[in-house]
Amino acid sequence: MNYMDMALHTDKYQINMQYAHWKNGTHNNRRVFEVYFRRIPFGNGYAVFAGLERVVHYINNLKFTDDDIAYLAEQEENYDQAFLEELHNFKFNGNVYSVKEGALVFPNEPLMVIEARVFEAQLIETAVLNFMNYQTLIATKAARIRQVAPEDILMEFGTRRAQEADAAVWGARAAYIAGFNATSNMAAGKAFGIPTKGTHAHAWVQDHSSEIEAFRQFAFALPDNVTLLVDTYDTLRSGVPNAIKVAKELKEINKTVQAIRLDSGDLSYLSREARKLLDEAGLEDVKIVASNDLDEHTILNLKNQGAKIDSWGIGTQLITASDQPALGGVYKMVAKEENGQWLPTIKISGNPEKITTPGYKTLYRMINKGTNKAVGDYVSLIDEQVENQEKIKLFHPVHTWLHKNISNFDAVKMLEPVFENGQQVYELPNLDEVRRYHDEQLNMFWPEYLRLLNPEVYHVNLSQQVYDMKIDIIQKEMQKIEKD
Amino acid sequence: MNYMDMALHTDKYQINMQYAHWKNGTHNNRRVFEVYFRRIPFGNGYAVFAGLERVVHYINNLKFTDDDIAYLAEQEENYDQAFLEELHNFKFNGNVYSVKEGALVFPNEPLMVIEARVFEAQLIETAVLNFMNYQTLIATKAARIRQVAPEDILMEFGTRRAQEADAAVWGARAAYIAGFNATSNMAAGKAFGIPTKGTHAHAWVQDHSSEIEAFRQFAFALPDNVTLLVDTYDTLRSGVPNAIKVAKELKEINKTVQAIRLDSGDLSYLSREARKLLDEAGLEDVKIVASNDLDEHTILNLKNQGAKIDSWGIGTQLITASDQPALGGVYKMVAKEENGQWLPTIKISGNPEKITTPGYKTLYRMINKGTNKAVGDYVSLIDEQVENQEKIKLFHPVHTWLHKNISNFDAVKMLEPVFENGQQVYELPNLDEVRRYHDEQLNMFWPEYLRLLNPEVYHVNLSQQVYDMKIDIIQKEMQKIEKD
Repeated sequence: MNYMDMALHTDKYQINMQYAHWKNGTHNNRRVFEVYFRRIPFGNGYAVFAGLERVVHYINNLKFTDDDIAYLAEQEENYDQAFLEELHNFKFNGNVYSVKEGALVFPNEPLMVIEARVFEAQLIETAVLNFMNYQTLIATKAARIRQVAPEDILMEFGTRRAQEADAAVWGARAAYIAGFNATSNMAAGKAFGIPTKGTHAHAWVQDHSSEIEAFRQFAFALPDNVTLLVDTYDTLRSGVPNAIKVAKELKEINKTVQAIRLDSGDLSYLSREARKLLDEAGLEDVKIVASNDLDEHTILNLKNQGAKIDSWGIGTQLITASDQPALGGVYKMVAKEENGQWLPTIKISGNPEKITTPGYKTLYRMINKGTNKAVGDYVSLIDEQVENQEKIKLFHPVHTWLHKNISNFDAVKMLEPVFENGQQVYELPNLDEVRRYHDEQLNMFWPEYLRLLNPEVYHVNLSQQVYDMKIDIIQKEMQKIEKD
Repeated sequence: MNYMDMALHTDKYQINMQYAHWKNGTHNNRRVFEVYFRRIPFGNGYAVFAGLERVVHYINNLKFTDDDIAYLAEQEENYDQAFLEELHNFKFNGNVYSVKEGALVFPNEPLMVIEARVFEAQLIETAVLNFMNYQTLIATKAARIRQVAPEDILMEFGTRRAQEADAAVWGARAAYIAGFNATSNMAAGKAFGIPTKGTHAHAWVQDHSSEIEAFRQFAFALPDNVTLLVDTYDTLRSGVPNAIKVAKELKEINKTVQAIRLDSGDLSYLSREARKLLDEAGLEDVKIVASNDLDEHTILNLKNQGAKIDSWGIGTQLITASDQPALGGVYKMVAKEENGQWLPTIKISGNPEKITTPGYKTLYRMINKGTNKAVGDYVSLIDEQVENQEKIKLFHPVHTWLHKNISNFDAVKMLEPVFENGQQVYELPNLDEVRRYHDEQLNMFWPEYLRLLNPEVYHVNLSQQVYDMKIDIIQKEMQKIEKD
């Protein structure tokens, strides 16, 4: 994978801010930034966090090459030579805390917390958001698709429609985290050990004198378990009967056609008719794969219509998250160190949802010990005592008079230390462990929060201290503006 | 840029088809594939072709590494060792013809034509589509944005919301081709020489004891021409007045605030009020930059409302082509060589628009010599005489009785030879030449075809020979199916 040479994968304003900090001698000031998003995409009840592994490799390999420095030297800004030297010696020495990949996550809670010199924390913002936003988006989309087809084989087939090469590979990984079974992308297979699947193209059929000849040449050439694409000329009159003939011929040499693939037309009707033809021929074991612009809605509808489809090849709609192709994750400063103290910082906005929540904070998931289900997330300051409390008050972040007191709970710390003073202290789990963790996470939520349509809202609660601090700072800032 | 090590950036079915061809001894058969799309995105009247440079670098660097071969050897398919050797020695030796980057292109016309051994042509399909689809999509979106703001400065600001790293960089390039002026992405600046622009983040303001102090520290530290972000606390009561104070202070040392940036709230109202405040302070030269989820529709509406915005920072909506995040470009076999002859191949579909147009073809743009404007595109077989004809009949591809005869035209050949026998024969133009070519292309079309909403349909015509061949083959194939 392309982990190297990413220092310039950043916005110019980061370099400009680094420069101004360095000029002013403030570049060593320590700051805390939080990564979070404001809304869950697709109308889903949760998002699936992903992208951490990519961030870890990025940070471990983060340095400016000679070329990078030469390029910056040519920029119209005329950066000082001594500043460029500073960049040339750049190394990330900060602390990073992060939710684990595969976790279910919710709006306005810290997913990653970066504590570092402002010089370092600013530089990495753009890449961290770029990686986290995309993989979290695709994992969330994949989780929705998995939900409508819990028992079926799901294959990511989107490379040709992905938004360039990285998206294809990291999107395949994100889909696998959220329960997909395979990808068609060989680079993703090689990089992450994801199982790869593939059939053949229409070109294979066009390339032969007849469809049956094409099927024979393919099925006999490959070792075993081929899938035959049956819609090049006419699915029911030509493709399926030819596939049946070849499946029978293969049987005689103890090889099998594993599946047929439908890639156009009315998938509901065609799959039921194809199933009948296959069953009548004694080929009950031959599966039916469908593809063609599928997403969770088309799959749900096809199942409702009784489509006989065992396996789904999902491309464009998944790999681009077509109905909402960006997660609006942000990276906001929440605290600054002054004289050894962490002072909260805020950004006010005419749009209340864009006001940040100040303070160096952490995140807990409250699990009822009786049911083992999550009752709410809880955002506190890092030095608040939350674990081993008898009782905690959870209140609605906007309609604050709505509250409940919870007891008999475990407060599970969601943020893991990933880097300490620039050293990686978190061992990256392999992808199958990430998948298992994702499954465990799903099991900790009542189905009401997980359903596709109109899910219950799972609440992210602020601790009383965080809430009071936020209100206090907003009032002070507004007074300052009034006074001016 | 990440040009190396891309042989596995492909779908498994390509490797499986390569394998089956190799097993059957058909891998050296020559085939012709065409790249085209079926619909223009965003309801636009044209698409802007881009991605060729990426394809050229990909093909020039295409080889399987030892690692790639080792990975394939472990695959469940148990590929023969001799096949893996064949891959290890793989080199692309085919011919590629392509439309030039920046060209206006239309549905169902060949944008790229690949003539090669099927073994080679199949492998590259996935990557070629991945590259062409994304860059063409973004260039087309960017062209729409350029259209509503022909005189303004347009800046691509989307990296954090792009679908991973490659999308950010290649998307910035595609936007620049279609007339954007700058990008915030430093990697794109370095790789392609695109001008880079950046302001500062809200974090910069939060990091200082007051907004005015933050502005001062930024403006005095940077060499010159800074842009100040004025919406961290309150745009009109705090941000703009503070920016004005600092602009005046800077003037005294002969430095300037180039612009203020609005990033939230009612951009129409805020920009008009900010303009007034700036003008009253004698700062008529200070520009106003706007950002915040902009696209061609919001810009059009803001201009209609009299917004005073000189420069636009455009992120998510551009870099993800949010309203239609995939171009459905396809790669279809159109001809196969048999005994030294090119035989046309077809794919039939119940959906008429998915039926391919057979034959080894090329593309002309018919330009009226009097007006210098395009009258229609023309798809012929490669050996038809099209140039220097007195008169040509153009007829509607579906409603064939609708036709016109044209004369006094130049038939401009749109496909350039890019690779001949695997050797690059096309010199890649630099990006400014591509931009110029794009402008020339725009000038060759009547405004009716270019407008944002409900553009006139520009016709892609088939030559009589191509049309007759297509109808003939469809009928023969359908007869074959009927007979079975």
